[in-house]
Amino acid sequence: MPRLRDRRGSITIADFLRIWSQSRENVGTPYYANKSTMLKAAREIQSLLGEDAVSMDVDDLESHGYSEASTTNIDTRPVAAIMPTSTEEVSLIAKICNKYRIPMIPFGAGSSVEGNFTAPYSGFSIDLSRMDKILAFHEEDLDVVVQPGVNWVNLNDTLKPAGLFLPLDPSPTAHIGGMVATNCSGTNALRYGTMKDWVVNLTVVLADGSVIKTRRRPRKTSAGYNLNSLFVGSEGTLGIITEATLKLANVPSHFGVATVAFPTVKEASNAATAMIRSGVSLAALELMDDVQMRVLNQVGGTAGKLWQEKPTLFIKFSGSQRTVEDSTGASKSISSAHGGSEFVSATDEKTMEALWSARKSALWAMLAIRPEGTQIWSTDVAVPLSHLAEIVEQSKENSSKLGLFSTVLGHVGDGNFHQTVMYNPEKPDQVEGVKRCVDTMITQALKMDGTVSGEHGIGLGKKECLEKELGPATIAVMKTLKRSLDPYWLLNPGKVIDF
Amino acid sequence: MPRLRDRRGSITIADFLRIWSQSRENVGTPYYANKSTMLKAAREIQSLLGEDAVSMDVDDLESHGYSEASTTNIDTRPVAAIMPTSTEEVSLIAKICNKYRIPMIPFGAGSSVEGNFTAPYSGFSIDLSRMDKILAFHEEDLDVVVQPGVNWVNLNDTLKPAGLFLPLDPSPTAHIGGMVATNCSGTNALRYGTMKDWVVNLTVVLADGSVIKTRRRPRKTSAGYNLNSLFVGSEGTLGIITEATLKLANVPSHFGVATVAFPTVKEASNAATAMIRSGVSLAALELMDDVQMRVLNQVGGTAGKLWQEKPTLFIKFSGSQRTVEDSTGASKSISSAHGGSEFVSATDEKTMEALWSARKSALWAMLAIRPEGTQIWSTDVAVPLSHLAEIVEQSKENSSKLGLFSTVLGHVGDGNFHQTVMYNPEKPDQVEGVKRCVDTMITQALKMDGTVSGEHGIGLGKKECLEKELGPATIAVMKTLKRSLDPYWLLNPGKVIDF
Repeated sequence: MPRLRDRRGSITIADFLRIWSQSRENVGTPYYANKSTMLKAAREIQSLLGEDAVSMDVDDLESHGYSEASTTNIDTRPVAAIMPTSTEEVSLIAKICNKYRIPMIPFGAGSSVEGNFTAPYSGFSIDLSRMDKILAFHEEDLDVVVQPGVNWVNLNDTLKPAGLFLPLDPSPTAHIGGMVATNCSGTNALRYGTMKDWVVNLTVVLADGSVIKTRRRPRKTSAGYNLNSLFVGSEGTLGIITEATLKLANVPSHFGVATVAFPTVKEASNAATAMIRSGVSLAALELMDDVQMRVLNQVGGTAGKLWQEKPTLFIKFSGSQRTVEDSTGASKSISSAHGGSEFVSATDEKTMEALWSARKSALWAMLAIRPEGTQIWSTDVAVPLSHLAEIVEQSKENSSKLGLFSTVLGHVGDGNFHQTVMYNPEKPDQVEGVKRCVDTMITQALKMDGTVSGEHGIGLGKKECLEKELGPATIAVMKTLKRSLDPYWLLNPGKVIDF
Repeated sequence: MPRLRDRRGSITIADFLRIWSQSRENVGTPYYANKSTMLKAAREIQSLLGEDAVSMDVDDLESHGYSEASTTNIDTRPVAAIMPTSTEEVSLIAKICNKYRIPMIPFGAGSSVEGNFTAPYSGFSIDLSRMDKILAFHEEDLDVVVQPGVNWVNLNDTLKPAGLFLPLDPSPTAHIGGMVATNCSGTNALRYGTMKDWVVNLTVVLADGSVIKTRRRPRKTSAGYNLNSLFVGSEGTLGIITEATLKLANVPSHFGVATVAFPTVKEASNAATAMIRSGVSLAALELMDDVQMRVLNQVGGTAGKLWQEKPTLFIKFSGSQRTVEDSTGASKSISSAHGGSEFVSATDEKTMEALWSARKSALWAMLAIRPEGTQIWSTDVAVPLSHLAEIVEQSKENSSKLGLFSTVLGHVGDGNFHQTVMYNPEKPDQVEGVKRCVDTMITQALKMDGTVSGEHGIGLGKKECLEKELGPATIAVMKTLKRSLDPYWLLNPGKVIDF
């Protein structure tokens, strides 16, 4: 406990020199090693971890620094991709990076879309995909301990016999590490929340190579600062996640799926809001607009079925048999009160799968129909529930005015939606158009008191948006926290916030 | 964006002097103003905020620095209780405290129990109870904006006509500010999670008086660091919460309550775990031990009913009528498979109230039967679910060996329980006994990978326990964060972690 003092603390010369030298390095923009030093460090790591642990192959560096699916790409690449197999190896890598001042960019499945793993200052891509073990499964405690390279679909397959699952559903390729780093969610978030709600503890390697465990293994705690939630969603800028204990949920005994079409997005959204407000037990509540439904039909529909080309709600129910029945019935009557038509529901595995596959095929269908040379810009915002219909309609109108083909897909129960815009990167007017489209959407979302990212994160691409969202004082607090944990700004520099 | 640099950043003389003077003040233990400076600052605040805003009345200082219900009390008191009415006034107070180096201790309802609002370095108690306004209610967005002095029971009464509620239930006296600061929970946590899960954004006054808003108003976001969760549970050591936007839940259409007695705590816990694992839809799942049930009977039972003096589960159900029926039926059969007897259930308001009132009267009954001169030590730990029965039995045995009268009350669905021990503070052997009791319970909880506080927080009383729980590296990270946001260690010093 600090002693009460009635005068200023004195300072020794040694203390002074230590602090001065630390302060000195904290002033101005961060200093990073040059390429030859980075290469030297990579060889040092290789000599310690083995030949196989470090790649400088051009294709490897490309796949670790560039992604076609991302909204934001740049020209620089990491000088090496490093593939550790344990927390100890990650710690050792961080110590070397700390010594030479080399950026460390954690890399998982590479499925993030906001430039989250680009290498603006080069450095090392720390690829955690070899750390793919399930370390412990505590069935009775409803939790599991995993390494960051575990794929969530594989994890859920393994857990299935025990009737448990991790109820997030981002891209099926995603790894736990990346899911934690971006606070992922997906269609299940309405019922189960986002990644932050499923983390019991994390093992994290800090910028200087020290290793911490955020917590022990209680499902509930009020002990000390919530470091879990600080690292969750920090996109690798505060530490490298090398182990995670995750809560699990019971797989519900019964499921149901329903789809229903509406004349307008407004009516679909109103029906969705009414379902939420009436307390119907919903597992997922998704919206796809008329254009997205048309795109599905262009690729032949799903499971042999062509869809009405109207804004459509996709609804999932789960629980006891009677809960599913009750919720399906309530959703049907709320839908028809809001102009819904062709309400189709199913509880058998095959039909549910067929109905839901339309929702799951949305992005794939867009990729399939795009003309050669075009790319897709897919970004997301979230707004308070009552504003969703308005911003979706505005965004559709806006892209159509600019002559761009776009679809909308919304996690409508969370006020979160994705607009996917097609454009030709070789045509400057289209590039300009897509940028204006996204800018307008973000400006609108902020006017409605929303956020510039509901689930994709900030990465390299949305830093300016984040400043607009939160303002300088709040950004300053984030910088203070970042600087306190990573004074040399080595962890994923250039992401989320700038120095 | 930081520019790439190939050499160390240079430093200006002005920069150097600024940093040096800052560093100088950060070395050693914190420096706080002496009493006469504190009194001078109090008068300065009084001249700015009005006579009425500052109290130096001895009784006021007592109630702002001491609580009979707390496990930890000390002799020092704040020199003044300051009662701001707005964020601007809190900011002004913080600026003055920052200037004179005066500890600021946020104060809500005064119902915390781990010495959370004691004043080990004196300073100002910042009493937020005059900030008790509901600022905005967005019914369609399912959220509400409140000041920290709002009482949650009053809030829920106000929201009732809209069919919405804030689903936490700590002490009925608790204020929102304190609920946020300790990450409160209560019996509803099994279904609805803890306070951190209901915060959309916070307005926070930092140590230097600057004001930030953590977020806008989206229900879901992946934008930037999760400052909400950093401030939630930080017990006023990182900032003073002056406004909160909170998510609301639909009031379920139907409720049910059941109680069932078991021969042993072990069997009751096993039944509870089986209910959770089987996916029965539960709203709350509470355990009271045989001694606690006997205490209830000693004060005449509840609602005219005497209870079986056996470990008893109190179960709440909610949802559609059929969900409640299904869950009640499933709980009944699981209970009887685990040795449960006298399963009683109800869905009418009056009987539910009568059954549940036993759970709610537990602490009051203990206070009513205690002999004059005795006090109550009530603390909580949480462990992974599978260990709950074992630690409850160990704790009961332990207190009984030490000749102390104690009861157990568990939020069994969260692995969280409270042991309430009666002791006479004038009898050194009993004081020693209660300490050993708590120490052993905490040691056991940590051995089981649990936490030293499931919902009461760390406060002044459990700092050493927290160090044992998390270890020096994790505590060091917490200190780094604290120091970065509050370099002079002015916010609630002596709580959670030490300098």
